Amino acid sequence: MNQTIETLLNHRSIRKFKDEPLTDEQISYIVQSAQLASTSSFIQAYTILGIKNPETKAKLAQLAGNQPYVEKNGHFFIFCADLHRHTIASGMEGKQINAALETTEKFMVAAIDASLAAQNAAIAAESMKLGICYIGGIRNDIEKVSELLQLPDYVVPLFGMAVGVPDTSTDQKPRLPMGNVYFEETYPSDKEVEKGLSIYNNIISDYYNKRTGGERSDTWTEQMTRMLSKAGRKEMKDFIQKKGFLKT
Amino acid sequence: MNQTIETLLNHRSIRKFKDEPLTDEQISYIVQSAQLASTSSFIQAYTILGIKNPETKAKLAQLAGNQPYVEKNGHFFIFCADLHRHTIASGMEGKQINAALETTEKFMVAAIDASLAAQNAAIAAESMKLGICYIGGIRNDIEKVSELLQLPDYVVPLFGMAVGVPDTSTDQKPRLPMGNVYFEETYPSDKEVEKGLSIYNNIISDYYNKRTGGERSDTWTEQMTRMLSKAGRKEMKDFIQKKGFLKT
Repeated sequence: MNQTIETLLNHRSIRKFKDEPLTDEQISYIVQSAQLASTSSFIQAYTILGIKNPETKAKLAQLAGNQPYVEKNGHFFIFCADLHRHTIASGMEGKQINAALETTEKFMVAAIDASLAAQNAAIAAESMKLGICYIGGIRNDIEKVSELLQLPDYVVPLFGMAVGVPDTSTDQKPRLPMGNVYFEETYPSDKEVEKGLSIYNNIISDYYNKRTGGERSDTWTEQMTRMLSKAGRKEMKDFIQKKGFLKT
Repeated sequence: MNQTIETLLNHRSIRKFKDEPLTDEQISYIVQSAQLASTSSFIQAYTILGIKNPETKAKLAQLAGNQPYVEKNGHFFIFCADLHRHTIASGMEGKQINAALETTEKFMVAAIDASLAAQNAAIAAESMKLGICYIGGIRNDIEKVSELLQLPDYVVPLFGMAVGVPDTSTDQKPRLPMGNVYFEETYPSDKEVEKGLSIYNNIISDYYNKRTGGERSDTWTEQMTRMLSKAGRKEMKDFIQKKGFLKT
């Protein structure tokens, strides 16, 4: 196993950081690494914001559901799906491209582009012994986050990423067994999926049991069913359409 | 600069591979690395298919717009946004979760999860000196791809990834300057974006000029405007809604 794969397999989300800001060199390596991820037809459909201002961080932490690590970290990144740059590009060429930008396809391209970039950023940070945590919570009140960051049309903030020097070590929760996620040739039958999930339920239940001295032993299917029993963030479609995407 | 960042910064898409299948060990490292990427609230909302069957590969190559490297590679992965597994999980708990799955938010969660996993897969492969190329072309005829792979409801194939031992070396096209993609605190003004794009246009135009001995010198804003002047893959929304997503 090489060092890079060791870094990948050693990932855990870090939610407590030392009070040490990232250096400009670290930020530069992280952003450059992000930019070297693959991008669909060279479209580079994302923007990365870096938040240092303590007031902005405090507001973001509050909007994201009062997660303290959104405020206290070495640097806070926000990854946005961005095709606003492309409206300016087409304006420079005297053309209109809104019909393309309004398609579901183009929003997918931008969201995928931004995510590939973000994961490279995460790996670059972790390779420098920094810890990271993705913050989907910035979508809790996406409208206000968008206003705070002054995001124009065709820019949608997808998630944040808190980065910093770790101040805790955390366990690695067991992922789905590889055989439940990776299949050759075709998608498996429902029966096969269910069988896999039963096995995984035992693994997860055991994990919690051991970790909490018997206080908690819920299974993965229980957790997921609880989480998905409510439809959260229902305003997402309206917000994204207001930004110009997902119309057709 | 550490070895992992070197791998990240050295990325280029590879479109010609030696006739050497990946070993089971390589596939296992790639998939395990993918699985260790961050996942929203432990949802693990993706499935990875591995295609070895030459007939299936040939069909996929044809559906993806006759790209030979979809057929000829060491292994072909397909990354799917997947919440089908979660319908089975909720069935095991005797509950219905369709209202949540139908939201735009949940499709975003699945697409982001799958993309983070895929980029870890890409990095794992490249760290083992393999080459990779993302294949968005599988969305050219997404309905037929979905049938071929027998994908059920709540599973959307997002992109493929050809992996193998590189048989060519390729240039690295210059990305947007970091100052055009990374901003601190707030989104920049249109004027600032336009200024950055003018500088980038010169870089890209020079790059093509030198590479083609003066035969090609188009700018990035020209390329993007040309590409975005047509709205492609217009059936995407219908397809994704038919799969159960993006309804609310």
